[in-house]
Amino acid sequence: MAGVRLRLYFVTSNMHKFREVQEMVAPHGIMLVHTPLHYPEVRAESCEEVAREAVRSLARVRGLKRPFIVEDSGLFIDALNGFPGTYSKWAYEKIGLKGILALMRGARARSARFVSSIGYYDGRRLRVFTGTVDGTIAKRIRGESGFAYDPLFIPKGYKFSFAENMTLKSTLSHRKRAVELMLKSILMK
Amino acid sequence: MAGVRLRLYFVTSNMHKFREVQEMVAPHGIMLVHTPLHYPEVRAESCEEVAREAVRSLARVRGLKRPFIVEDSGLFIDALNGFPGTYSKWAYEKIGLKGILALMRGARARSARFVSSIGYYDGRRLRVFTGTVDGTIAKRIRGESGFAYDPLFIPKGYKFSFAENMTLKSTLSHRKRAVELMLKSILMK
Repeated sequence: MAGVRLRLYFVTSNMHKFREVQEMVAPHGIMLVHTPLHYPEVRAESCEEVAREAVRSLARVRGLKRPFIVEDSGLFIDALNGFPGTYSKWAYEKIGLKGILALMRGARARSARFVSSIGYYDGRRLRVFTGTVDGTIAKRIRGESGFAYDPLFIPKGYKFSFAENMTLKSTLSHRKRAVELMLKSILMK
Repeated sequence: MAGVRLRLYFVTSNMHKFREVQEMVAPHGIMLVHTPLHYPEVRAESCEEVAREAVRSLARVRGLKRPFIVEDSGLFIDALNGFPGTYSKWAYEKIGLKGILALMRGARARSARFVSSIGYYDGRRLRVFTGTVDGTIAKRIRGESGFAYDPLFIPKGYKFSFAENMTLKSTLSHRKRAVELMLKSILMK
């Protein structure tokens, strides 16, 4: 790892996410600091809006160091009108991967999209960086690495799910793309 | 209808709900006035909390006449860990009745609960009245009256769904029970 150029505070309660992003930013001299703070999530149709509103509410929290980021992500399945979307985590806890497979039983159109929005605030400007990856929903649970919906998501052009091939996820995931957009913006200065 | 004892403003965008409640309160001399105002819904595990927060946010709206009410309701299915719960409307729009049936395919334990919470504010006190009705999830779509999940819900002790027998719904529904608790409270004075 290169010398530390920047400390970046990541507000999240999800350690999987934290470690994923940590590995992505470390080579760029960014030390990611875990900040396990709770924040309100609004009801919205897009991850971008959820991330933006989370930053707005966290910007008012005294003592929270800057720059900080939050991340909101979701799986949007076309045949289910975008379900589970911005409620992906909640739906995962309630109905799980088996629930998604039950809803998709017999569905021919299996296209879906993973979306990740990173909200960033340095005390002056609020920015949101959004990455997406297209793919399809597998017909069974595939693989054991990754987390949440990874075992059901096969990125376009590949034959493996994100949970079967972690290199795939770390190189072309929605979260990776959002992180890249953020790096481009904050390291350019 | 008896003479008008009270005008009550119902903030909702759901005309089905409005008419249901209107029929319940009219015999008690309450004129329900439809107020189609949007309000933020928080992410919460209970209808009570959603209703309470909605009232708190509406209490700050200038020009909104009082007393006013809001109503939040949901279907909580035990085999699905409470899904769709406080996101019932959203899940209905995304996956519909067929989605619920797919999730419940083969499930032996079909118990569920309809919950309705009415938030009331008269300018001084905020109160929340919650009614529930126990029942089971039908194995197919049954009946055409009512709305949302009514065709899937068979109240405990009966053989018909809420959509097959509107009298059933108007006499023993979760919403009816919440309305009764509210009437008891506001008409006692």
